[in-house]
Amino acid sequence: MKEFDVIASFFAPLAEGYDGALGLCDDAALFTLDGATALVVTKDAISEGVHFLGTEDAGLIAKKLLRTNLSDLAAMGAKPAFYLLAMMLPEVTQTDWIEAFSKGLAEDQRLVGVTLTGGDTIATKGPFSASLTAMGTVPHGKALLRRDAKKGDRIYVSGTLGDSALGLALLQERLGVEVAFADRLWLKERYLLPQPRLALGQALVGVAHGCMDISDGLVQDLGHICNASGVGAVIHRKLLPLSDAARHVVEADDAWWRAPLSGGDDYELLFTVPQAAHKQVEAIAAALSLPLTAIGEIISGAGVTVHDEHGMNVTPEVKGYNHSV
Amino acid sequence: MKEFDVIASFFAPLAEGYDGALGLCDDAALFTLDGATALVVTKDAISEGVHFLGTEDAGLIAKKLLRTNLSDLAAMGAKPAFYLLAMMLPEVTQTDWIEAFSKGLAEDQRLVGVTLTGGDTIATKGPFSASLTAMGTVPHGKALLRRDAKKGDRIYVSGTLGDSALGLALLQERLGVEVAFADRLWLKERYLLPQPRLALGQALVGVAHGCMDISDGLVQDLGHICNASGVGAVIHRKLLPLSDAARHVVEADDAWWRAPLSGGDDYELLFTVPQAAHKQVEAIAAALSLPLTAIGEIISGAGVTVHDEHGMNVTPEVKGYNHSV
Repeated sequence: MKEFDVIASFFAPLAEGYDGALGLCDDAALFTLDGATALVVTKDAISEGVHFLGTEDAGLIAKKLLRTNLSDLAAMGAKPAFYLLAMMLPEVTQTDWIEAFSKGLAEDQRLVGVTLTGGDTIATKGPFSASLTAMGTVPHGKALLRRDAKKGDRIYVSGTLGDSALGLALLQERLGVEVAFADRLWLKERYLLPQPRLALGQALVGVAHGCMDISDGLVQDLGHICNASGVGAVIHRKLLPLSDAARHVVEADDAWWRAPLSGGDDYELLFTVPQAAHKQVEAIAAALSLPLTAIGEIISGAGVTVHDEHGMNVTPEVKGYNHSV
Repeated sequence: MKEFDVIASFFAPLAEGYDGALGLCDDAALFTLDGATALVVTKDAISEGVHFLGTEDAGLIAKKLLRTNLSDLAAMGAKPAFYLLAMMLPEVTQTDWIEAFSKGLAEDQRLVGVTLTGGDTIATKGPFSASLTAMGTVPHGKALLRRDAKKGDRIYVSGTLGDSALGLALLQERLGVEVAFADRLWLKERYLLPQPRLALGQALVGVAHGCMDISDGLVQDLGHICNASGVGAVIHRKLLPLSDAARHVVEADDAWWRAPLSGGDDYELLFTVPQAAHKQVEAIAAALSLPLTAIGEIISGAGVTVHDEHGMNVTPEVKGYNHSV
């Protein structure tokens, strides 16, 4: 049974009747207390041998766990505040390893301005696993949601797409393409150290309609926005923003052209804005020195269609991205 | 390396500078937005073969995970609001099992009035593990904390102590005592289905000084209150509230007399109140139909001392309760 099926069958019913759960369909949950600020809460988990190889530096594993959660906060337009951490430690875990893990978190805390506030440390008879709960704030009623895309909206993505999938292929020695040293570094770092687009998410509050972060691949995640909003989408392959490194790989072996469409772990923001707001998007891009690229438009109907430069339908099959390493 | 050492060495430094983290010393973290209400957040994790046997009904495992988190909210005087769940599923997990797990949660949601609002479902190459993050609310500045016990306070516990440790011994067939059928049922249920004292926690807001839930055994947990408050404690063994079932076991084999002092998983509340407030405590006990028993007093100094009926020191050695099944 796949994750989506498990959630839909057994856990979505447990969230019925609570608006802030957003039907378990968004990146995080919303919770309003008695003031003008809403709380945004997200929780992600990782397990060795599935989400990471186990040979990576422990600090990098910690940072990626924290950053994927921060990316969920970014997707809702939230400012991060604090997080809780549950660690499941095999008996063989070395103290050095835990220390490196905590140092990774400390470095990112300084970078982002979040604080650990609690959690749990338990023994496990399995491999190392961890779960992190991150919380942030957003003005009441202003959170960016998947369900707010409107027909006629332009679809934007931040940064570049596909790097992370190529970086993972490199690490697993299945890229099959000669890659220059600088490109190797870039692609691997994009996989190992995602950049949560926190400043962008906060800047998009009041500007964007639908928004989410791309973790399972552009086409699949845009499909989530379409489903949640009751609309369809057309995107143009030639508009997809590729890094130089990714472009070199695709030029060397065009079997990799699907990476920017279906590759996971991008952690860029995918958002829609009304046509009239494109100048605001340009201003945000300039202010943040972050490329924001229009890749298509929201249409009536359902589902995502990808067009090539000749207008041919080249939509890849969505299989449900599998994070397995 | 033990849990407390790991936390103190590597993770407590990550919480420095954030008051609401309470130095990672309380049962949950506090977070204040811009209104009159504070948020209380707690996170616990479990792993098969360590925290449960794996042969239990999945619904019971789910309920215990939810309830131990709710007990942390109760300990802070919070009213529960919602929770997030991360599940790490081995490939062999049966759909029936997941369904039973979710049904257990659904039953407790109805009982307590909490809602699932998010989380994560991942694959793992290890045994089933899960982490739950529960959130509740308490009036700003009113949360019950471990650090507020005062010299001269009376020390109270709710319910009865030691049942859960005896129930686990029964399940593991190492009790070594003949136990009547009704007693067996009671002791096992106390281990499998803790009763988070939510109504009590909320009633104690504004009444109790120091407060926590007993998860690692009375003496160890009272030690946490003493450390956090800079005080000592004397408790009297003959005052400890035992269920009939626990009394029968202790009478049959007095090797079990330590269960109410050192046995884990009680999930009763342990709290201190000024002497003058004892009538309020009696009124709360009557209103909730829940025994609240004075077992000793807070003194100056440090550490916990247990006296027997002759005034002899019978304090058991605190080894750090190990939840291993």
